[in-house]
Amino acid sequence: MQPASPLVQRIAILGVGLIGGSLAAALKRVGAVAQVAGYSPNDDARVARALGHVDVACDSVAEAVAGASFVVLAAPVTAMPELFAQLRDALEPRAIVTDCGSTKRSVIDAARRALGDAFLRYVPGHPIAGSEHSGPQAADPDLFRDRRWLLCPVETTPQQHCEAVRRLVETVGAQVSTLDPALHDRVFAEASHWPHAVAFGLSAAIAGGELAEQALEFSGAGLRDTTRVGASSPAMWADILLDNRDACLASAARFRASNEAIVAALEAGDRDALVEIFSAASRWRNRLG
Amino acid sequence: MQPASPLVQRIAILGVGLIGGSLAAALKRVGAVAQVAGYSPNDDARVARALGHVDVACDSVAEAVAGASFVVLAAPVTAMPELFAQLRDALEPRAIVTDCGSTKRSVIDAARRALGDAFLRYVPGHPIAGSEHSGPQAADPDLFRDRRWLLCPVETTPQQHCEAVRRLVETVGAQVSTLDPALHDRVFAEASHWPHAVAFGLSAAIAGGELAEQALEFSGAGLRDTTRVGASSPAMWADILLDNRDACLASAARFRASNEAIVAALEAGDRDALVEIFSAASRWRNRLG
Repeated sequence: MQPASPLVQRIAILGVGLIGGSLAAALKRVGAVAQVAGYSPNDDARVARALGHVDVACDSVAEAVAGASFVVLAAPVTAMPELFAQLRDALEPRAIVTDCGSTKRSVIDAARRALGDAFLRYVPGHPIAGSEHSGPQAADPDLFRDRRWLLCPVETTPQQHCEAVRRLVETVGAQVSTLDPALHDRVFAEASHWPHAVAFGLSAAIAGGELAEQALEFSGAGLRDTTRVGASSPAMWADILLDNRDACLASAARFRASNEAIVAALEAGDRDALVEIFSAASRWRNRLG
Repeated sequence: MQPASPLVQRIAILGVGLIGGSLAAALKRVGAVAQVAGYSPNDDARVARALGHVDVACDSVAEAVAGASFVVLAAPVTAMPELFAQLRDALEPRAIVTDCGSTKRSVIDAARRALGDAFLRYVPGHPIAGSEHSGPQAADPDLFRDRRWLLCPVETTPQQHCEAVRRLVETVGAQVSTLDPALHDRVFAEASHWPHAVAFGLSAAIAGGELAEQALEFSGAGLRDTTRVGASSPAMWADILLDNRDACLASAARFRASNEAIVAALEAGDRDALVEIFSAASRWRNRLG
């Protein structure tokens, strides 16, 4: 994967927490980029610089973006509109913009409102990688290896810009595929956003119960896995769920029906009904591998 | 941990699936038992014999228990009453009986009804170890290493018998502690049984939705972990939940309230409320490590 010479002279990564920091570290390790400039509104960029993930920690979006032929937004979805707005006048004339947001429709709308003509050089993206940890300290250059990296172009996005993003992220081991933005948001509500809410909800129920301490003491691997993403950033996940609210509420309604059916079967002592629900669950889950 | 000579000449393990098979394999590897006799009402004992986990595959409880100074019931909780009944007349006069059931009150009740005087030689137990896989093929001699193994004696259980069980299971790397049986069942409803129902319920909701295939295709590590135990045996977990129904329904009620609060906050667009719930969840979950 090591390119003979850098694909990109300078890349600007706006937001250098877990995702942006990992991308920076991975691009530097593989030699795909000559210079990685990081910006964050907090201390993350300086921490990422101290850890060697980025070459330059910038104090503004304009400073980071100057001279960059690639700009990657790796910030929480709620921070995207402001970043796009700051980008507009600083962007180099041929620079390509992409993002790593967990939702796509709202980020695309924000880009469309802010970028003007440069919207044609924006490729919506979403690496399917993460961790319950956050911040540049948690960055891992192997985070994207063998993980999918989705591109969600709109009708007007030029194919050549998608290819440019693909070539870049393939250097860090990601496998690129494309998905319609609206379908993306429904699929991720179902496969990621609402499941995070379930893990938070289960953890909150145990935390607020009278057995919270004993549950910690006597937990096994099952509880640790079921609740793992319940340790994720509360604010970030509140924002993602709110950003993708309609799709998440649809997933929530399906989950509520399934949960109520289990409670009803348990109350009624209806073993056949429980086994039927659990079997449908288990057949699907076994296909997940 | 390797004893200079076997602690036990012959042990009978009734039920040699994941738990019984793993215990058999671990005891043999460490040399703690001279002979392991396995019994199962299905093919598991023969499979365990073929895999080398047990020395003898028996066709009846009586055959397995004959000559054994230790008897371990490692069968589903619903199978325990029948096994205790078959044990009673075959048990050696000084043999100690223990079990690995996921619930304790109902198993203790079954033992009390079936065993007569031998109830005094029964030590209720529960190793906190498992997997979403089942059967002797999934057995793993390291399954109990550094895991807790709970003993839940009743008031009349002699301390010396608890100590005998402790010495045996410590040879396979388990860490023994004791817990009141009624508290055990409430804690495990909260920390294991109901969380399994949540993982089944989430998996069933996704499996029954119109995005079931896409959720498989685009899932990340989060969904895999959150739903992992949803691949467990449907019948075994239906029986555990029904066996511990009251405690599970109490856990279910707390979870439902937590889930409804999340849905209400999401519907209302109430970010502060969502962050508050998720923060309580995350603080607790981070202590789980």
